[in-house]
Amino acid sequence: MMTDYPDRSSSGNHYDMIVIGSGPSGQKAAIQAAKLRKRVAIVESNWNVGGVCTNTGTIPSKSFREAVLYLSGFRERSIYGSSYRVKSRITMQDLTFRIESVIRHEHDVIEHQLRRNRVELIRGRASFVDANTIKVVSEDSVITKTSDKFVIAVGTRPHHPPGFELDGERILNSDDILSITDLPRTLTVVGGGIVGVEYASMFAVLGVPVTLIEQRPNLLTFVDKEIVEALQYHLRNLGITLRLGEEVVTTSRRDDDQVETILKSGKKVVSDAVLVSAGRQGAIEGLGVKELGIETSKYERITVDEHFQTSIPNIYAVGDIIGFPALSSTGMRQGRLAASYALGLGDETDSIPLPFGIYTIPEISLVGETEHSLTEKQIPYETGIARYNEIARGQLIGDDIGMLKVLFHLETHQLLGVHIIGEGATEMIHLGQAVLHLGGGLEYLTSCVFNYPTLTEAYKVAALNGLNKIRA
Amino acid sequence: MMTDYPDRSSSGNHYDMIVIGSGPSGQKAAIQAAKLRKRVAIVESNWNVGGVCTNTGTIPSKSFREAVLYLSGFRERSIYGSSYRVKSRITMQDLTFRIESVIRHEHDVIEHQLRRNRVELIRGRASFVDANTIKVVSEDSVITKTSDKFVIAVGTRPHHPPGFELDGERILNSDDILSITDLPRTLTVVGGGIVGVEYASMFAVLGVPVTLIEQRPNLLTFVDKEIVEALQYHLRNLGITLRLGEEVVTTSRRDDDQVETILKSGKKVVSDAVLVSAGRQGAIEGLGVKELGIETSKYERITVDEHFQTSIPNIYAVGDIIGFPALSSTGMRQGRLAASYALGLGDETDSIPLPFGIYTIPEISLVGETEHSLTEKQIPYETGIARYNEIARGQLIGDDIGMLKVLFHLETHQLLGVHIIGEGATEMIHLGQAVLHLGGGLEYLTSCVFNYPTLTEAYKVAALNGLNKIRA
Repeated sequence: MMTDYPDRSSSGNHYDMIVIGSGPSGQKAAIQAAKLRKRVAIVESNWNVGGVCTNTGTIPSKSFREAVLYLSGFRERSIYGSSYRVKSRITMQDLTFRIESVIRHEHDVIEHQLRRNRVELIRGRASFVDANTIKVVSEDSVITKTSDKFVIAVGTRPHHPPGFELDGERILNSDDILSITDLPRTLTVVGGGIVGVEYASMFAVLGVPVTLIEQRPNLLTFVDKEIVEALQYHLRNLGITLRLGEEVVTTSRRDDDQVETILKSGKKVVSDAVLVSAGRQGAIEGLGVKELGIETSKYERITVDEHFQTSIPNIYAVGDIIGFPALSSTGMRQGRLAASYALGLGDETDSIPLPFGIYTIPEISLVGETEHSLTEKQIPYETGIARYNEIARGQLIGDDIGMLKVLFHLETHQLLGVHIIGEGATEMIHLGQAVLHLGGGLEYLTSCVFNYPTLTEAYKVAALNGLNKIRA
Repeated sequence: MMTDYPDRSSSGNHYDMIVIGSGPSGQKAAIQAAKLRKRVAIVESNWNVGGVCTNTGTIPSKSFREAVLYLSGFRERSIYGSSYRVKSRITMQDLTFRIESVIRHEHDVIEHQLRRNRVELIRGRASFVDANTIKVVSEDSVITKTSDKFVIAVGTRPHHPPGFELDGERILNSDDILSITDLPRTLTVVGGGIVGVEYASMFAVLGVPVTLIEQRPNLLTFVDKEIVEALQYHLRNLGITLRLGEEVVTTSRRDDDQVETILKSGKKVVSDAVLVSAGRQGAIEGLGVKELGIETSKYERITVDEHFQTSIPNIYAVGDIIGFPALSSTGMRQGRLAASYALGLGDETDSIPLPFGIYTIPEISLVGETEHSLTEKQIPYETGIARYNEIARGQLIGDDIGMLKVLFHLETHQLLGVHIIGEGATEMIHLGQAVLHLGGGLEYLTSCVFNYPTLTEAYKVAALNGLNKIRA
């Protein structure tokens, strides 16, 4: 084969970089290294590539969400009422039959990309022998590979707190919730983080009475308070009972197959099923990172510096295993950057602010500062708000829930943050992100012509609302 | 009443500015003048404010479109097949019952805005007496008003070409298509401009066999060729027969209530109903503009310079009456600018490129240059393309149609244009618009972290596709 690449097709056991884990962050690390013409392998212990994102997390849950939204007729309820429901009795089969084909397609895409970039895919479970050597154990072999650099991207698995008798049938974690065969008649969700709130809202939209239990006094503590309050209001409207500031002591299955959840406060919640979403912990069991002296923190997370370097200089870590924000989108970026740093390239240290997307129903997205962070930094700001029901397209789609909030500097009118709840939030946030980063300021949003009718007009309405406040 | 405004509550008959017509462009002109603390009136000859946009055009047709998309289950067809249709038999009543309440809400919003900005609303039909005087005729009175400046924003009405026996029942124009009581079993659409193509696609999605006849060899001549070809392909897939390069001679209703459309080529199309969408002409009848010496052009359009000034210096014109692009979004901007110019303020002559939104199914949107315009200007460019089925969210929603194309400068990598067909196109275009105007360049799109999974990721995929081409 004619190629101007270094001899990367060699069957030798030494690599420039070995990536452990084939989720979004691992994929991007491997591909970035390959683009830099290095010999790269990616080790995956599961039969399928893609990690939690593709196989049990983001992709299946978002596929489920699309089915929930469509079959429940949720988006159109305010317009057509329940007489226009797509199916009067929705089954788990209706909601999940599409997931497998979406996942299979993603596997194809990932494997094709790795192949095209000449990243070698090694199937088996990796463990460190020393800082430059791993052993890969598969069903039929044990092989040893050496590498100059390693990138750990093994992700996380659900944290299993004591007192929860998980059984994969009635007491479930986020990895097995979608494999149940019947929709539960009632559901208790333990944990008000992103995953817990997303599933709580989806089942509530399906008409399942849900009790959501969270230790902290509010859900999603990193989100703008006003948006969280709006979310909590809408979740209650969907029939969710919020038990905030409450701790779960035990969860156990009774003889009648109902599940009893006992709270520290003495309350008892009985339901058909329980989803335990009590955080996740690093999937480092058997990897030998601690034995090697790699520093870890709470919940088996690996500690890294700003270049994603662990306490062992030639070993990097990216994605969920390094903790917050633990999103597919941010993991991809981390993977790409870590590979560049590891290979001595550095990277444009760009400062494009990261968006956050939360696929609750209604969905939430944010970019930039919050009121809280600005107040802490003593940056003077003002807010501008637009409600979807004020704009034509919000009326057309019957979204009474949506709201967009801009935060801007009181003197310079620079955009500082955008917070959205409602239809299209996770897509629309990217305009705010661009204006934030490219320095457009509030005046860009007020003088811009937007397509009519679109939800994006909310940016203009919010910007005008904000400017009117400071000109009053 | 205590106020620092000039005496605008006076009942005197002289104004700083009178705006004729209360559609989007007229509204914004009046409000802008009011914000500049001028005494302003707006004259409306219809019982309802809002113009064609609110009452027979944009708002009703987009409300109809939402109903078509939902009730037909179009968005989910590729996923669920036809077994999951919302209603097996969809009626015009199902599709239109919501329109009235949306329109009423828009009327409230407009009247509230005018009132809050102290714009006087005068009901009646205006005609010019001289360059500073109009007569307003209503059912019970004739009054005379004078003003320093006028802004004509009277909009357009459907052009009625000879040979078409419009009857409001079987042979319809775009103003009465939505008032028919029964879905036609077959439909002929004459005219492949925006309105004709939008309605053709909507009825086709409902399962109505449609024949679309257009004189020119392609639809939507101002849209990127590749996007138009994709659109034409999908329209044919929906069951639309395209008769391009064909001219209609007559359209007449037969004794059996079918409508016969005769083409110049000798072809004959028989259908249950015909929509004549043969362009629109200025609604200047009785306004006395020609008598006053205001210059007009083809189809009764008023000629203006770049400041929206007519051939009579104190009279301005904005919105559909001045011709292309004749969109609500651009009309609003024109109204605001014209008022500023008329009142001697000028305006930031900003250069934010205008987006175009076409609400066909699938929808189309574009901003900036086309391949054609760049070739004409001899600007060296390259293209990058992303198909929705390559990105995770496209897979999730089952959009096999969508495509996003970026045009960028071959040397500087500056973004020059964005062209989208598919779900969310009219919303997503605004990111391209911001990057274009704020000078982000292709590198912004490639290094940006987008929420996952979103359709917006198509920008990144298209940008990478483009860069790969020039690096190859």
